Amino acid sequence: MTVHEALEAPLLRFEEALSELVRSEVLFIRLIHQDLVTAGGKRIRPRLVFLASGALGGAPYDLELALAVELLHSATLLHDDLIDDAETRRGKEAAFRKYGNAVSVLSGDFLLSRLLFVIAKTGRMELVERFAEVAKTLSEGEVLQFQVAALEDYSLENYERIITAKTAVLMALCTEGPALLKGEAEEVREALRRFGLLYGQAFQMRDDYLDLMGTPETLGKPVGGDVREGKATLITLLLMERFPEVREILRRKGREAGDLERLRALAQESGVAKEVEERIRQRAEAAARALLPLPDSPYKEALKALALKEAKRLS
Amino acid sequence: MTVHEALEAPLLRFEEALSELVRSEVLFIRLIHQDLVTAGGKRIRPRLVFLASGALGGAPYDLELALAVELLHSATLLHDDLIDDAETRRGKEAAFRKYGNAVSVLSGDFLLSRLLFVIAKTGRMELVERFAEVAKTLSEGEVLQFQVAALEDYSLENYERIITAKTAVLMALCTEGPALLKGEAEEVREALRRFGLLYGQAFQMRDDYLDLMGTPETLGKPVGGDVREGKATLITLLLMERFPEVREILRRKGREAGDLERLRALAQESGVAKEVEERIRQRAEAAARALLPLPDSPYKEALKALALKEAKRLS
Repeated sequence: MTVHEALEAPLLRFEEALSELVRSEVLFIRLIHQDLVTAGGKRIRPRLVFLASGALGGAPYDLELALAVELLHSATLLHDDLIDDAETRRGKEAAFRKYGNAVSVLSGDFLLSRLLFVIAKTGRMELVERFAEVAKTLSEGEVLQFQVAALEDYSLENYERIITAKTAVLMALCTEGPALLKGEAEEVREALRRFGLLYGQAFQMRDDYLDLMGTPETLGKPVGGDVREGKATLITLLLMERFPEVREILRRKGREAGDLERLRALAQESGVAKEVEERIRQRAEAAARALLPLPDSPYKEALKALALKEAKRLS
Repeated sequence: MTVHEALEAPLLRFEEALSELVRSEVLFIRLIHQDLVTAGGKRIRPRLVFLASGALGGAPYDLELALAVELLHSATLLHDDLIDDAETRRGKEAAFRKYGNAVSVLSGDFLLSRLLFVIAKTGRMELVERFAEVAKTLSEGEVLQFQVAALEDYSLENYERIITAKTAVLMALCTEGPALLKGEAEEVREALRRFGLLYGQAFQMRDDYLDLMGTPETLGKPVGGDVREGKATLITLLLMERFPEVREILRRKGREAGDLERLRALAQESGVAKEVEERIRQRAEAAARALLPLPDSPYKEALKALALKEAKRLS
């Protein structure tokens, strides 16, 4: 049985359990969750849990952990992606927005309450503690991202803090979690934690790269979303060091005609695009190397392959 | 030592612990929390915890529980009171709003992560379970309130569901919590839980009454906020049964000149205002009676007095 086949059953149970878990008597909560939570998605985080679980031997399970990380991720999506309520009223937005931001946010809170429920079911207080830490770091990372944009406090150091806090620490919990639940040795826990952190960073760096350098077709949304929110990512930060105009473009949130095209051209011509791809590759390879202390297995190979894919992911 | 004096020390420790707990390295989180969380407030929920704790004998403590209920309450305030982002940009709103709704919401999430931290510190998994239940009910109640307004699904039954879910269940956890932590008999737990539920309902009924019938001076905000959000409360629900025009006023969210004055006049002339006050008094008295199984003590008397105050509270 391949790893891919071995994951089918737990992923199926995951979808069933998730639907069950987010069931509510309140119609508007059901409608939002139909759109956002139970409509599929790549389930990257539950997959990480199952792969890490499998890499430790035994069946790839830890269903509650997989549910909890996905619930935290989905709630964050509902909480950080608010839109202008005036736009909602003009009906420009997706169906699930039409009840307004507050309903989206409170539906996210509902998911967080189900996260509490599902970790309580494990009976493991250290899991409650780890989720407390991760949720704290995650919310701080999200707010820091807004703060850096508002104060134009752009730096590579802040960029690393943001991608670590808002993406990598949750990925690290996905991979370390099974080791924690199984009571593995510190060396194994640390290896899986480091893998999750480095993989999460590479993942976010790739997402940020594609946000500017990708195509609307592969992204499934217009390019330049980060620029339009005044958010500097690795590519714009490196460009800023060489071209003062990039700071101006970010300040005006890419609103002038040709701004995005200019950034893309500068990134290609200056070699910054290549440099960023190289940095992502290095981070992905560091993630793969972090798994060295683990016994060889198809699951370990699958985790490595997942990380190395970030060096060339296009969508 | 009076109950009032006995509560001083725990409330002081509460304020210190709360400030410590919500400390963050992220500037924007600190700014929002200064405005909203550590700026005082009536601390009704922590007081309930301390009073219930005292009524069970021993020092009125349960600090972690008091912190957890206040964190949940504060996070909900940050999550259900979103405003039009366009207004934020025009600078019409309070200082803490100026970074936008998303930052408020994510700062609320930070508080929820601290709630997890503080209940993990108690080492009591049944507390995690209870918070999971209450947070679920609370978010469902908040969404239901928006849903009822959007669908004009007005009924006394929905009103009772909403005030119970969004206010009373958390109050019930405040009062039952200490009994749960102390391992009290089921009869005592149930008495305190029923007290919290009935008191919470009376409290919300009084808040809703004052929202329409109070004065801007005692309210500290313009009257008619609920009408302007299309939210029916006990007073408008009872008026609706007698005067069809009230449904029209609610539908247009009290936007026409004289709408609010008309509602207030109708409520006074028809006797509905008196009827609502009578219903609040009955609920408050039921709360006081629920405490019967508890041994007599100054704390029990203080809880009773707190409930009976709802029958005449003006601000």
